[in-house]
Amino acid sequence: MAEAKVLSGAGLRGQVAGQTELCTVGKTGAGLTYRGYDVRDLASSCIFEEVAYLLLYGELPNQAELSAYQSKLNKLRDLPQALKEVLERIPAQAHPMDVMRTGASILGNLEPEHSFDEQRDKADRLLGAFPAIMTYWYRFSHDGVRIDCNSDQATIGGHFLQLLHGKAPSELHVKVMNVSLILYAEHEFNASTFTARVCASTLSDIFSCVTAAIGSLRGPLHGGANEAAMEMIEKFASAEAATAGTLDMLARKDKIMGFGHAIYKDSDPRNEVIKGWSKQLADEVGDTVMFPVSEAIDAVMWEQKKLFPNADFYHASAYHFMGIPTKLFTPIFVCSRVSGWTAHVFEQRANNRIIRPSAEYTGVEQRAVTPLEQR
Amino acid sequence: MAEAKVLSGAGLRGQVAGQTELCTVGKTGAGLTYRGYDVRDLASSCIFEEVAYLLLYGELPNQAELSAYQSKLNKLRDLPQALKEVLERIPAQAHPMDVMRTGASILGNLEPEHSFDEQRDKADRLLGAFPAIMTYWYRFSHDGVRIDCNSDQATIGGHFLQLLHGKAPSELHVKVMNVSLILYAEHEFNASTFTARVCASTLSDIFSCVTAAIGSLRGPLHGGANEAAMEMIEKFASAEAATAGTLDMLARKDKIMGFGHAIYKDSDPRNEVIKGWSKQLADEVGDTVMFPVSEAIDAVMWEQKKLFPNADFYHASAYHFMGIPTKLFTPIFVCSRVSGWTAHVFEQRANNRIIRPSAEYTGVEQRAVTPLEQR
Repeated sequence: MAEAKVLSGAGLRGQVAGQTELCTVGKTGAGLTYRGYDVRDLASSCIFEEVAYLLLYGELPNQAELSAYQSKLNKLRDLPQALKEVLERIPAQAHPMDVMRTGASILGNLEPEHSFDEQRDKADRLLGAFPAIMTYWYRFSHDGVRIDCNSDQATIGGHFLQLLHGKAPSELHVKVMNVSLILYAEHEFNASTFTARVCASTLSDIFSCVTAAIGSLRGPLHGGANEAAMEMIEKFASAEAATAGTLDMLARKDKIMGFGHAIYKDSDPRNEVIKGWSKQLADEVGDTVMFPVSEAIDAVMWEQKKLFPNADFYHASAYHFMGIPTKLFTPIFVCSRVSGWTAHVFEQRANNRIIRPSAEYTGVEQRAVTPLEQR
Repeated sequence: MAEAKVLSGAGLRGQVAGQTELCTVGKTGAGLTYRGYDVRDLASSCIFEEVAYLLLYGELPNQAELSAYQSKLNKLRDLPQALKEVLERIPAQAHPMDVMRTGASILGNLEPEHSFDEQRDKADRLLGAFPAIMTYWYRFSHDGVRIDCNSDQATIGGHFLQLLHGKAPSELHVKVMNVSLILYAEHEFNASTFTARVCASTLSDIFSCVTAAIGSLRGPLHGGANEAAMEMIEKFASAEAATAGTLDMLARKDKIMGFGHAIYKDSDPRNEVIKGWSKQLADEVGDTVMFPVSEAIDAVMWEQKKLFPNADFYHASAYHFMGIPTKLFTPIFVCSRVSGWTAHVFEQRANNRIIRPSAEYTGVEQRAVTPLEQR
């Protein structure tokens, strides 16, 4: 074997592991683009289905294409009976990301991807089915209700809210869910997407790739920051208490979630978008605590640490104002990011080489086995 | 963002992505070592449980430690009722690796890893449970039988054969299963192990890591070569037909599975071991076709292409002689490699940085969103 090259950075940081046409993160002039479009532009002009179509089909749809796509996705919302029966066997105290991972995995048994020709249909199936996978399990295990997995909502965002709450969501809530799903849709070679690409590089099926990606997103260093932010925000009853409490946490060197970013250095372009919508939701519900608390924490983090809120921080209050249980925050991330994951799977397959790096050996020298009776 | 460094090789080939004390592949003097021991030495002297203990606990066990470990694993063989009910809902035509992936995922819901302090117990649980996950589904879906998931077999290899066949295996078969599980246990940063480490690097739970790894092993560029080899071997009725047929396949540039290796250049150290045992099994059953056919293909590949059989090629006939259905070959790989995967998860956790490489952007320049009605 040729001598392997030792990379400078742990975690492959700053090392190019492949090519993509899908996304730029932190390039000068635009913090985050999907196929050339600034994510802020997409979030203000589009519904999530347009962005999923952009990622999966290559260009933004025109009206006829969008209508056809929404119609297709709407037919892919219900779950097979066997999948519902599996979800009914998962206890209420399970980690919701374990439920999402299992839902994707079981769907791969029931509706397998027989050939890569089916990859777009399977990606669309997962997009359509994830809101029901999450809410069917949640409502059954927590409320003892077997929900209808269909709704007359035109968008995945509205559909999710209707399944969760059992009633049609307001126009504002549908808009914010669309914005949120757009903001979380894609982010280059983050750990879960890279997981999907490593899996895809063995030419495995798309359900395996998405199942693997969910497993990575589950980790507290990746998904879940908005849930952790929520738990912190809820501790404070006023902006003053939040300011004092955050200073205390910093003094104790506690980890404060929802701030800073591995790649962005000055700000996260997604923050300004979701912060604006969180404010609108706060005004709608007449909130006088949670949004001011969030802003107070935000101010302390900037003053003390020069750390900015990332995409996750104001997502916490935004989701909360829409009545979404905290434990479902990261599963919503799945409903969105599956668009980016599957687009990366397509890309990996189109120009594939199995991803198989080397390791630096730091173990013992070669040695002989001592027979069991002499150990 | 600092300019990312472009690596020379696609698929991170030859690039060091981390450190390991577990394994060397292709180092001078020994083709494959686990914690310093030549795999051939381990395969001749040990049962699989000793090797799993070596990988997971750091050293080969003495007799008391081994007895205690086997006793522990034996208690971890049965499946929770909910898992059995899930397996009963997976159809017979499902891909067996989809079943293994789902079994690992659902177990993570039912018996979650609450803290990394539990990681060894959870690794042992997966080692104990996988034979039953595979065979309970297989026997129920194919034969309509709900098998007992316990057996009085002392080893995982024997236990698997007893669950599959419903009777105690011969001493020779138990020995060969142990050898096979040892040969497949660990192989440095192969794609499935690297998948597990990327997942682990987000500090996700061990069930997510193993579920993700199974998804990668499922790919035809990774696991599954022994199944493909079996399908080819079964086509030929004699050594003469195999010689002619292999030459034909080479002339047609058909892909012939079970030969060559991404890292080994001259031979695969696992081949000589399993080839010897396959020969013994052939003699035991009085085979006059399959082993000679295998040797004929082997000879043509060396003469024509200078390609050597890898670990998978003679595994095909060996498993076949023990009455194992071809579709279960790759799931057996899971029962073995889970020891290596979980040992790598421990290692990643012990010195972690999230694995988050960069991508080279090859997409369109930045552009503005055209309003939907003008597209």
